[in-house]
Amino acid sequence: MCSYYVSMPKPLKPGLSCPVARTLDVIGARWTVLIMRDLLLHRARRFQDLLDSGEGMAATTLSDRLKTLERHGVVERRMYSQHPPRAEYVLTEKGLALGPIVGAMREWGQTYTEWP
Amino acid sequence: MCSYYVSMPKPLKPGLSCPVARTLDVIGARWTVLIMRDLLLHRARRFQDLLDSGEGMAATTLSDRLKTLERHGVVERRMYSQHPPRAEYVLTEKGLALGPIVGAMREWGQTYTEWP
Repeated sequence: MCSYYVSMPKPLKPGLSCPVARTLDVIGARWTVLIMRDLLLHRARRFQDLLDSGEGMAATTLSDRLKTLERHGVVERRMYSQHPPRAEYVLTEKGLALGPIVGAMREWGQTYTEWP
Repeated sequence: MCSYYVSMPKPLKPGLSCPVARTLDVIGARWTVLIMRDLLLHRARRFQDLLDSGEGMAATTLSDRLKTLERHGVVERRMYSQHPPRAEYVLTEKGLALGPIVGAMREWGQTYTEWP
């Protein structure tokens, strides 16, 4: 049980009264943290850059994840060329604030896991 | 692309040359972070305690996640009573070191997400 639960007069969607669960609601889906990692490292990425990132994510999955991140205000799609139209993805302030989570994952992975 | 990739003479399982991806290989499955959250908060939990945590995880899923965490050396199962036999789950040192990740998720959730 999350100690950050607060009792409320009406039922809530289970788990979302806990801030850890609410964060997972945004970044918990498979692949999402790896997209965040790439955007934190490179600041701006085109769809194809993210697709080529090395882990073998399907294009439909990437498209779905980016839409979810946009809906949560974590990622913004912006045009960097009008002719031809070309878009790239950047993190918002809310997205950049996810940096410490990804950084803590990187540190733990470096310290506690081994090269396969 | 993760800047922590290092070129190697033989092909690797995609992604696992990046420490962020290696961490996700341990804690990336749905529900796992919520189990970690409960064990970080309470130190020791019985199976039923974790099941009752509020998010509605299925018993088979919890069992699967705990086995994975044990296999990775993140969680230990220990007997706290022999008659009748009763077990509880505790974090290892490697598991306790995941605390900063869960803490960063809690902080982000508190700052950037709203009560549903």
